[in-house]
Amino acid sequence: MSAEEFRKHGRQVVDWIADYLATLESRPVRSPVRPGEVRDALPAHPPEHGEPFENVLADLDRVLLPGITHWQHPSFFAYFPANASGPAILGDLLSSGLGAQGMVWATSPACTELESLVVDWLAELLGLPERFRTDSVGGGVIQDTASSASLVALLAALRHAGGDPARRCTVYVSAETHSSLEKAARIAGLGTHQVRAVGVDSRTLAMDPVELADLMAADVEAGAVPAMVCATIGTTSTTAIDPVARIGEVCRAYGVWLHVDAAYAGVSAICPELRWINDGVAEYADSYVTNPHKWLLTNFDCSVLWLADRTPLIEALSILPEYLRNAASASGEVIDYRDWQIPLGRRFRALKLWSVIRWYGAEGLREHIRKDVALAGEFAGLAAADRRFEVRADHPFGLVCFRPVWPDLSTEDANTATLALLERLNASGALYLSHTKVGENVLLRMAIGAPGTERRHVHDAWEAIRAEVDVATTHPR
Amino acid sequence: MSAEEFRKHGRQVVDWIADYLATLESRPVRSPVRPGEVRDALPAHPPEHGEPFENVLADLDRVLLPGITHWQHPSFFAYFPANASGPAILGDLLSSGLGAQGMVWATSPACTELESLVVDWLAELLGLPERFRTDSVGGGVIQDTASSASLVALLAALRHAGGDPARRCTVYVSAETHSSLEKAARIAGLGTHQVRAVGVDSRTLAMDPVELADLMAADVEAGAVPAMVCATIGTTSTTAIDPVARIGEVCRAYGVWLHVDAAYAGVSAICPELRWINDGVAEYADSYVTNPHKWLLTNFDCSVLWLADRTPLIEALSILPEYLRNAASASGEVIDYRDWQIPLGRRFRALKLWSVIRWYGAEGLREHIRKDVALAGEFAGLAAADRRFEVRADHPFGLVCFRPVWPDLSTEDANTATLALLERLNASGALYLSHTKVGENVLLRMAIGAPGTERRHVHDAWEAIRAEVDVATTHPR
Repeated sequence: MSAEEFRKHGRQVVDWIADYLATLESRPVRSPVRPGEVRDALPAHPPEHGEPFENVLADLDRVLLPGITHWQHPSFFAYFPANASGPAILGDLLSSGLGAQGMVWATSPACTELESLVVDWLAELLGLPERFRTDSVGGGVIQDTASSASLVALLAALRHAGGDPARRCTVYVSAETHSSLEKAARIAGLGTHQVRAVGVDSRTLAMDPVELADLMAADVEAGAVPAMVCATIGTTSTTAIDPVARIGEVCRAYGVWLHVDAAYAGVSAICPELRWINDGVAEYADSYVTNPHKWLLTNFDCSVLWLADRTPLIEALSILPEYLRNAASASGEVIDYRDWQIPLGRRFRALKLWSVIRWYGAEGLREHIRKDVALAGEFAGLAAADRRFEVRADHPFGLVCFRPVWPDLSTEDANTATLALLERLNASGALYLSHTKVGENVLLRMAIGAPGTERRHVHDAWEAIRAEVDVATTHPR
Repeated sequence: MSAEEFRKHGRQVVDWIADYLATLESRPVRSPVRPGEVRDALPAHPPEHGEPFENVLADLDRVLLPGITHWQHPSFFAYFPANASGPAILGDLLSSGLGAQGMVWATSPACTELESLVVDWLAELLGLPERFRTDSVGGGVIQDTASSASLVALLAALRHAGGDPARRCTVYVSAETHSSLEKAARIAGLGTHQVRAVGVDSRTLAMDPVELADLMAADVEAGAVPAMVCATIGTTSTTAIDPVARIGEVCRAYGVWLHVDAAYAGVSAICPELRWINDGVAEYADSYVTNPHKWLLTNFDCSVLWLADRTPLIEALSILPEYLRNAASASGEVIDYRDWQIPLGRRFRALKLWSVIRWYGAEGLREHIRKDVALAGEFAGLAAADRRFEVRADHPFGLVCFRPVWPDLSTEDANTATLALLERLNASGALYLSHTKVGENVLLRMAIGAPGTERRHVHDAWEAIRAEVDVATTHPR
């Protein structure tokens, strides 16, 4: 495709996206397709001859769009948001257009230097400690996801714990910790028995630091080597917050690496009134991850990992073949981010985060977070005021967990009724919620954070939920 | 950013990229900046207030571009290509614009279904075996890089070998195998002593299958559990090709997983005359990886991994928290690609590969590969015809390895002279080469594959290299 053809088709695609964003609200949030429906509508074999680009756009409209669940839809309230924005999309487009590889500093210095700057900017915006800055002994790096970030944090922690005796190392999480930590431990070759699930407070669902200390003491007594504790700020299920400072004290007593998973909630510390969520991080955290691609208007993938000391990470991951040797790396004056991650190759992801921070400014980003927190509070108020619903008390971010109480049903039947209600709501296409389980109860999750969500979308969602419960209680199925 | 602002700035960015591509040739290929130069030219602190998008573009021109090494430049001959193309960039832009998350089928069915279709298309185009198809027991998946793909292949192989006794497992590579395999083994918790470097043929640099069999027999005798062999089709250093069929026979005798790393060269099998490179793959390979983001005009990241049996991979990587449970996954009718990779979240990468295959067609993609292979042959001919140069005999792809012979210098001094020559060439900005080491000798690597490279760029490169050698031999430094 020539530069001029690119100009022509590029404008078509930009217009397509602008139209998509402008009309998004009219589409069903969750795709209604059945398994196989999208694939069956496309040619089974690849084309022998090239086709006009217009054919791609036509099939996008005809076949793919019905198969898309619209994560940017203002009534998308499922999972956590994966919100995007114009400046993020355009920053990413610039990255694609440049097509540069930032695996080491020398292969495109601007990729590395803009990344180190922008993660320092973000650390400053979130009030994270100075030692996380790239101009210190620590530093930040953009990963694809918090799963990968937590894996490399674990590898650094294992190295810190002595490297070789990984088979005796233990890792501490809670039942509320994201499943990626268990996955990371499995990938790193740790057995299931080496991952300890610390108990949580039954009300707050926060990790119990006393039980952590007891478990760790017993493990050390038994000859194990505690390597890492993962504390979560904003769990995936309910946005529970582990007591980082108290966990950190336990870690410090045993010289254990403290990793903080703030994948969803961490970015909210851009608001001074939410900075308390990071209590203990400055004093105790060895690594910290948050995802601008969840709630900070930066399109997937963009997860930022900071380390208080980059050395064990680089020791764990660096291998230097001849064809990557170069004067800049040998000088020690530069960062080679390939040693901070699983893959070798690197996309220039910093461009999109830079573009987002510049377009919105700190002020604009705070406004976005505050709007969602306020809407979540408003939704929780509506649900709490209705005696047919039960709302979880703590919802400091954009997520509200709640359930219809179904007074006449057993726990099991109530859960079935809640899930059936959820399915009817989602099948309507008007909104999209997800669910979780706390104790014995299935709860609905209303996660507010799509870029276009306004007050009316939240109120419409509440009306739809209430109406469905009305129908279900009047005409039980 | 509103939809209309996006339309406006989107056009600016498209124009910027079109202009960049049209004028790329006038820029120095390798960035001349010094460490810190880019970062120092940008504000140390993030902006409090939002800025016009034009400021981003202005800083891109003023600060970032001088710090970019232009991988799409027609005279970029270093490493391997990471070539991009218009349809790939636009496919990726559509993915950003949709902002959908394909972690499981249910979160956006089209993401999964287009991916499974397009990897089947690519398998067909490359003549890969039927059992690699997603409608069989195997299947293909798009990963970020071959590093990650080889890691998940290793995890599947460890599972296949019995899972738990990973500490007794051994993995077989050669000294020419990509460093990502050693990195993968390290990540998976295998010790250095569990990774065996099989010897290579001193001329072809291909793995010696007899030595492999001997090593494996001795390991089994000693109580180890051979888990995986990695055969490479087109090594990073010199594009050497391991004898897959003979290695496969050894693997079969011991029930060991055969992973084939064809990261760079694999896509060339789209040309029937190069399909011989995959001899043995259909009979023996358990997994196979190739990167459309290297030499198939698809911008980074897009690495395709196929498996002959997806079960051990899913067993190795699947964990199901409550909040991801859904009817489609429970039905077993759909693929949930999150279980095929390290991260949980997934970008809709299939769009760009689909867009590339449709725009160029099989025919257009073959033409691209054939052009580069022909230019490499032409370059090798020029160098071989000049008695001051020595050229490695085998160059079936786009890479030619060669060196000035420096008749009066010791090996060490010759290597120093070659590296100094390389630095002068690269510092000129007119072209960009990289190097490797074979035996005792430093060789230059001329990798042809940038999208805009034409005959004249290759001839100009040869003239520049020859002229530098002229100067160096006339006025030795």
